[in-house]
Amino acid sequence: MKILIIGGAGMVGQKLARRIAAGNIGVEVDTLVLYDIVEAAIPGAGFKVETVTGSLASEGEASRIAAMRPDIVYHLAAIVSGDAEANFDRGWDINARGSWSLLEALRAENEASGGAYVPRVIFASSIAVFGGPFPEKIGDDFLCAPQTSYGAQKAMTELLVADYARKGFIEGMSIRLPTVCVRPGKANLAASSFFSGIIREPLNGVEAILPVDDDVRHWHASPRSAARFFTHAATLELDRLEGRRSLNMPGVSCTVAEQIEALREIAGEDVVKRIKPKADETIRRIVAGWPRNFDPARATALGFEAERDFAEIIRIYIEDDLPNAAA
Amino acid sequence: MKILIIGGAGMVGQKLARRIAAGNIGVEVDTLVLYDIVEAAIPGAGFKVETVTGSLASEGEASRIAAMRPDIVYHLAAIVSGDAEANFDRGWDINARGSWSLLEALRAENEASGGAYVPRVIFASSIAVFGGPFPEKIGDDFLCAPQTSYGAQKAMTELLVADYARKGFIEGMSIRLPTVCVRPGKANLAASSFFSGIIREPLNGVEAILPVDDDVRHWHASPRSAARFFTHAATLELDRLEGRRSLNMPGVSCTVAEQIEALREIAGEDVVKRIKPKADETIRRIVAGWPRNFDPARATALGFEAERDFAEIIRIYIEDDLPNAAA
Repeated sequence: MKILIIGGAGMVGQKLARRIAAGNIGVEVDTLVLYDIVEAAIPGAGFKVETVTGSLASEGEASRIAAMRPDIVYHLAAIVSGDAEANFDRGWDINARGSWSLLEALRAENEASGGAYVPRVIFASSIAVFGGPFPEKIGDDFLCAPQTSYGAQKAMTELLVADYARKGFIEGMSIRLPTVCVRPGKANLAASSFFSGIIREPLNGVEAILPVDDDVRHWHASPRSAARFFTHAATLELDRLEGRRSLNMPGVSCTVAEQIEALREIAGEDVVKRIKPKADETIRRIVAGWPRNFDPARATALGFEAERDFAEIIRIYIEDDLPNAAA
Repeated sequence: MKILIIGGAGMVGQKLARRIAAGNIGVEVDTLVLYDIVEAAIPGAGFKVETVTGSLASEGEASRIAAMRPDIVYHLAAIVSGDAEANFDRGWDINARGSWSLLEALRAENEASGGAYVPRVIFASSIAVFGGPFPEKIGDDFLCAPQTSYGAQKAMTELLVADYARKGFIEGMSIRLPTVCVRPGKANLAASSFFSGIIREPLNGVEAILPVDDDVRHWHASPRSAARFFTHAATLELDRLEGRRSLNMPGVSCTVAEQIEALREIAGEDVVKRIKPKADETIRRIVAGWPRNFDPARATALGFEAERDFAEIIRIYIEDDLPNAAA
């Protein structure tokens, strides 16, 4: 089986690649292709791992990708929320038109094969498809009312994935990721970047800016869980989705104050002191429109799992990523 | 004020044009432009009414339309559900890409004017954005899970309208129409066509096919109500939508048996005898995935109104359209 990760150099893409390379996917893999605008790092694996560089939104790229005829396509490529909000055209081109051209190219391969080639497409969506006002917990029947361009682009791609799958051109589903936290490495342009920054930077001896009030509640899952959501989706019987192909993933709901308290318990007061509150109105406004808590009953029933509390999320960062950060 | 109706030759477009021509819109009109692929009929009006022919999905058409700088754009153009289901490319090209190109062209005019030109765009969406399983009544927070390409195309355009409006390029909202019933004139390719046919044909002395069981429940509003939804939206304060720019319209929920019973009461048994049951599996399958009942609380609070029962819908057909049909 050939697996393609579009966005394979990104943080979640790399976690997923390493998880697949370690044999934790439940299918027989012969080739893993990591596609991204930059050369992806190649994990050690008992099968062939290749990298391809390019931009999905460029002319002809989608066809080039589809011509590889991957059995599973993980579509994780996107520009982040802050970037899409600041650059309207760029966001719609890459996050929406790029995704659409991928589906069109896969459909062309499906038709060229007389219907024999039906790739499984797992799309990385986001809880940014939701907009307030919210119920205490967002259920599986709650409407999408995105309040950012990024959220609208994710919601639109979900609609396309669902319709192309319904028509049988692909098998498909969308994984609505919680905010992935603690992200290793550097801060990025996502408005959600600080949720990781306030844990990661202090643990690495660096000061971190907290741009919102500490009573902000949000929905998190670790990078390890994110990778596991995607590998779980590789073998999920998609008929069980019953035509509702976008799933809210499980996660941990907690306030920034609870995040900080968990950090204090694990790493102590001196580490927590490295968090410096400094209000940022733009981030504050974007984050105010984001979901805070979910009841992901369908995903849970289908076997998707995340952490139980934020302390576990911090411990996973320390276990999986802190050694590399220090090295 | 200049008003443009895209899809102005269509049934609802014509009803809307006549309603505007009769002065029932609440704004001062100096020009009404009826755009469609065929020449639209021109209603008598106390202001200028023009027709323009063309196809929104054609190269350059969206810019041509936007260059008219209409103050209000009613976007009613679409190919119907049955057609979009049978012709995948055609549906996505016209219903989705066509709508997107319109919004892009209006945005270009907005930017060319330095932000001074902000047209109000009222998009004709549909309850086909919903997919089962349904609650007894669909509330305003219920998810979009379209089970047809047509529904997905409407849902996608809703997302675009909302994001372009949020960014201030347009003022915008989407009106999710119930099935418009009783449609005058001929049956069309819409899978919903029979809901009108079983009333209209018998009243005109013609036999009508009933392709589904008579316990099928559905959500209806008259053409008169549809036109009134659109004129009401012309002056609605859109801030009241609070970022949720797609509204379920009010309507009448009833079964086919109840439709027939209302027809019997109004027109008698001999007329009802012209309805001939003949199962059609394709239509049956499509209609089975459609909503049956709503609680349109937000739209009602915002002053949108429909009929109270199906008998009223039949009487409106007899009043507004039967004389023309007979003539």
